[in-house]
Amino acid sequence: MELQKIGIIGSGNVAFHLASAFLENNCTIEWVYSRNEATGSELANKCDTKFIDSLNNISEVDLVLVCIKDDGINVVLNQLPSNINIAYTSGTFGLYDSQASHQNLGVFYPLQTFKKESKVDIFEVPFLIEAKNDYFKQQLFDLAWKLSKNVHFTTSEMRMHLHLAAVMLNNFANHLAVLAKQHLDAHNLNWELLYPLIKETNKKILEGQPEKTQTGPAIRGDYSSIEKHLNALEGDVNSVYKSLTNSILNLYGHKKL
Amino acid sequence: MELQKIGIIGSGNVAFHLASAFLENNCTIEWVYSRNEATGSELANKCDTKFIDSLNNISEVDLVLVCIKDDGINVVLNQLPSNINIAYTSGTFGLYDSQASHQNLGVFYPLQTFKKESKVDIFEVPFLIEAKNDYFKQQLFDLAWKLSKNVHFTTSEMRMHLHLAAVMLNNFANHLAVLAKQHLDAHNLNWELLYPLIKETNKKILEGQPEKTQTGPAIRGDYSSIEKHLNALEGDVNSVYKSLTNSILNLYGHKKL
Repeated sequence: MELQKIGIIGSGNVAFHLASAFLENNCTIEWVYSRNEATGSELANKCDTKFIDSLNNISEVDLVLVCIKDDGINVVLNQLPSNINIAYTSGTFGLYDSQASHQNLGVFYPLQTFKKESKVDIFEVPFLIEAKNDYFKQQLFDLAWKLSKNVHFTTSEMRMHLHLAAVMLNNFANHLAVLAKQHLDAHNLNWELLYPLIKETNKKILEGQPEKTQTGPAIRGDYSSIEKHLNALEGDVNSVYKSLTNSILNLYGHKKL
Repeated sequence: MELQKIGIIGSGNVAFHLASAFLENNCTIEWVYSRNEATGSELANKCDTKFIDSLNNISEVDLVLVCIKDDGINVVLNQLPSNINIAYTSGTFGLYDSQASHQNLGVFYPLQTFKKESKVDIFEVPFLIEAKNDYFKQQLFDLAWKLSKNVHFTTSEMRMHLHLAAVMLNNFANHLAVLAKQHLDAHNLNWELLYPLIKETNKKILEGQPEKTQTGPAIRGDYSSIEKHLNALEGDVNSVYKSLTNSILNLYGHKKL
């Protein structure tokens, strides 16, 4: 049986993007539940469906998809009947982390960064699929396959490691951009001067061998540049600079700071 | 007077790329000096010019361009006559950091990452120009303008801050890719699964407002994911994960680890 009628729990970035993708691929969104009435109603309106404000009022669907913070997954599972089909979108919450007795519990994790405002090509997004039983696992795979050409079965452990890598490559890379931009803003310098460098950096990383494209003061063991930079930085950004520099120095056989 | 006949000191990544760019833009490379005979001869051959192994043997040129580590710049300056035109390519070495008496001393800094093997579009590269006197400064600007459409006068302090930002956006971003890849390799996971995420990250950063595109466990204050990731990491990469996570937690009003 195809999973077609979907109920969404949550109204954050992931919920918005997956709901749109389902609607574009012949699924229906039967309802949206969220603790946040404003964003929940917004998502329900967008999907032309109803917003519900209590988990007691959910109607039957083929799949309940839980798109919320890890900390809340158990709470939701414990409130829902154990005979439903239910999957969550977390990168790190393990399939057996919950004591819930649901037999049709699974994972439907899109390995991508989502912001409501910003369109993403879902067809390219890797989906990592896992479930407690093979039939439900295949159903989740087939549902993901409607959205994307890039669907994989993984264990909770594999997914956690991939999520960890994703945190480094997206969350941390984006935060470095925030810190760099803040630093340049504070010195009245135009951060767009860095765009050719950002493009080149990305190009080289996507050539697939970042270990061969490392440059800069730390790999050269250029301590005088490093010292000047650290003197220009305070607080968190100083700590970030130091820990990354030490990691590079150490990897390439130089003495740490 | 146009700077046309150039002598190159150094034979690293920057020397290779700038020498090629000069040759493609009607300059001549009169000689290459390097302490490393192998790479020095390689560069000299590539430029169809002579390799010299002693600074006593340099012939007259319009510009001596010093493309070496910051730590070596003073050493070289002290060995060269004070009446020559000389510039260096460092991001952080200040114009008045040296006691050398050269009046025509300047900076010719390309704000980009270079690896010998990898072609770069020099025409897009920002060049940051500075010199002890206005005439020489203009000459260096005109020389850079032959290579690039993106040439700027900056002070040593402005250049240092831009270099610092470049370290964060290139060296650190590339190192994060190294760490993520090593982590996935160690768990037999294919890091190419992360490519769609890397592309999306870069696209969003280049939209120019990284402070609006932050996602992930730290901005959500999702401590249980963070803890699982830290348990999976040891040594330098654990420290790197922790310092970046603390910086994000703090910026978005969550309690640090």
